[in-house]
Amino acid sequence: MAPEEFVVTPYEVKGRIDYERLREQFGTQPLTPELLAKLHHVVGGDLSPLLTRGVYYSHRDLGALLDGFANGQPFFLYSGRGPSGPLHTSHLVSFDFCVWLQRRLGVRMYIQITDDEKFWARSGLTREETAHWGMENLYDILALGFDPKRTHVFFDSRSIAALYPLAIRVARRIPYSTVRATFGFEPSQNIGLVFYTALQSVPCFWPSWAEGRSVPCLIPCGIDQDPHFRLTRDIAEGLGYPKPALVHSQMVPGLLGDAAMSTSGNAADNALFLNDPPPEVGRKVRNAFTGGRATVEEQRRLGAVPEICSVWALWRTRFAETDEKFAQVTRDCRSGALLCGECKGQLLERIHAFYRTHGEAREKTKGWAESTIVTAAPKPL
Amino acid sequence: MAPEEFVVTPYEVKGRIDYERLREQFGTQPLTPELLAKLHHVVGGDLSPLLTRGVYYSHRDLGALLDGFANGQPFFLYSGRGPSGPLHTSHLVSFDFCVWLQRRLGVRMYIQITDDEKFWARSGLTREETAHWGMENLYDILALGFDPKRTHVFFDSRSIAALYPLAIRVARRIPYSTVRATFGFEPSQNIGLVFYTALQSVPCFWPSWAEGRSVPCLIPCGIDQDPHFRLTRDIAEGLGYPKPALVHSQMVPGLLGDAAMSTSGNAADNALFLNDPPPEVGRKVRNAFTGGRATVEEQRRLGAVPEICSVWALWRTRFAETDEKFAQVTRDCRSGALLCGECKGQLLERIHAFYRTHGEAREKTKGWAESTIVTAAPKPL
Repeated sequence: MAPEEFVVTPYEVKGRIDYERLREQFGTQPLTPELLAKLHHVVGGDLSPLLTRGVYYSHRDLGALLDGFANGQPFFLYSGRGPSGPLHTSHLVSFDFCVWLQRRLGVRMYIQITDDEKFWARSGLTREETAHWGMENLYDILALGFDPKRTHVFFDSRSIAALYPLAIRVARRIPYSTVRATFGFEPSQNIGLVFYTALQSVPCFWPSWAEGRSVPCLIPCGIDQDPHFRLTRDIAEGLGYPKPALVHSQMVPGLLGDAAMSTSGNAADNALFLNDPPPEVGRKVRNAFTGGRATVEEQRRLGAVPEICSVWALWRTRFAETDEKFAQVTRDCRSGALLCGECKGQLLERIHAFYRTHGEAREKTKGWAESTIVTAAPKPL
Repeated sequence: MAPEEFVVTPYEVKGRIDYERLREQFGTQPLTPELLAKLHHVVGGDLSPLLTRGVYYSHRDLGALLDGFANGQPFFLYSGRGPSGPLHTSHLVSFDFCVWLQRRLGVRMYIQITDDEKFWARSGLTREETAHWGMENLYDILALGFDPKRTHVFFDSRSIAALYPLAIRVARRIPYSTVRATFGFEPSQNIGLVFYTALQSVPCFWPSWAEGRSVPCLIPCGIDQDPHFRLTRDIAEGLGYPKPALVHSQMVPGLLGDAAMSTSGNAADNALFLNDPPPEVGRKVRNAFTGGRATVEEQRRLGAVPEICSVWALWRTRFAETDEKFAQVTRDCRSGALLCGECKGQLLERIHAFYRTHGEAREKTKGWAESTIVTAAPKPL
């Protein structure tokens, strides 16, 4: 793979991603200053750091969705998680953003936990494992600050009665050839995963179906997930439901320097898991790939390169408490004033503090997480 | 298509079927006199007319299943119906046989009503239609004499919570390429029907899964359905469940002379629907294709040909009240003593009588049909 090449699909992220080129390849729209200003107006306050720092950078139909909201048409948020193991910090990007939107706008959140899909996608996982991680992941997600009264969970294996009547209608509109082209499946792929995209589309339409009126949907997701929902958008009108709007984030690079913080290759050191004990977190961050130079002298002279640094990405996506702090870290990194060791130490203080408060919040969700799971169909057909 | 050619798949039956050749092509075993004697011994009484008249003629593993039963290992019966419209008389072949086995052996019956599959398989049907016909068909099926206490129904769209945990495990073991080869699906086939074979396999394993012990399954079905269950048998051992045994019937020819009583081509006159009013039944039988000759004189001299006659098939599969009556009709047909008009008149008396008693029994099932539908999973995984 040449240095300028990259591959981004829902099942693979490879190479150094040129995000503007990727956006053009996918045919999505940029999050322009005008659109951010509109969002600022609608939320009536400061923007999320995930917006001000450019982590979210692309969208489909976000402007029309915001216009509708301003005119009294509320939307709902939809995001999901394939429970293959513990959550890691890169998963926080979409859920933190959803929490922010829910708190600012009071909108409903639908979370899909795809314990069926992950069993189909990963032959090394048992059903016991995907079901176990489904609940563990759910506690972590809810603990980020979702409103118990406005948050609803489709835990696939347990919510299937709620999803299936609509999935039947969705699945008839998706030919196998479209799934093959979208995901690049081989003929040896199991029929569970082939079917799965129907179930992943269902939450986009579920409130409209359940309530018999048009309820728009907004999906915050990594840009790699866009192909899933292009397919969903293509079938929406035929079903009589609005196309889901999307807002896309860049990927969080892995601690080992990969383009995305994935653990598919069993590289546990590539990610900070939310259940890593503090010494493990410390060790992983200390060993993390940075944009630093070969020697202290060289770094003081030339500065480091934040754009390729996995530690800078953690500051950027969550751990810089203000945009000022983030600007300062970036500036001092680039100038050579801040060396990697010290930068990591400052970051670790914040990560450890987050793990402590998150752990407490997580325990509290166990009292109400079950009540968020939707188990019954709102109507038979 | 040359006269000796024929095609039999779960979605197509064409040509004049050579049932022995078909059995050899499919690799199933003949129902030998020895096996019928064993069955006679196990049921402790007379055999079903569907056996004595050769309608059921082929099997897989029936001998071992009967040996197990004789040694205290009960099995259960499984059959199903795709509710695309009203039931017709050819559907009675498998359900009549199941009633007979249930009454003789006291075994459990599981019936799958595939209102999802028929919606996926027939683009002209709405969900309202497949759900409606699902209940209508269920009343007709139960009215044939099933024991309310020992009969359980998977009505797919309503039973999905009961089926799905096991379907997740089944689907991982079925590659798309196997489904394509088994059913001859084009790439344009929708992903619902691609997935469907997993749901059709689930009932074969459901009691074993639910009870955590090996419960053998017997599936009486038309020989055209064998490919479905070959696939199921291939995955059984990997899941840790017994392979379902099968007993195969020949197809009931259509009233217009086709190899099978199908209404896929919208040929309503090809079948006797259980909701046809009596004058309609009379008209269809009077117009039915027979094995008669061009003139009365010729028929008296040469006799007729029962083997190609759609009316003889009705005598054979249900309406001859004894094997003696069936033998007499066959003999008199072949000799020329019985002309087609008189034969049809005698048959119609019996069909009308059946429709009357069946209609009464059907009304009574409405009081308990709902209670047979399984809606909850016996365990979460």
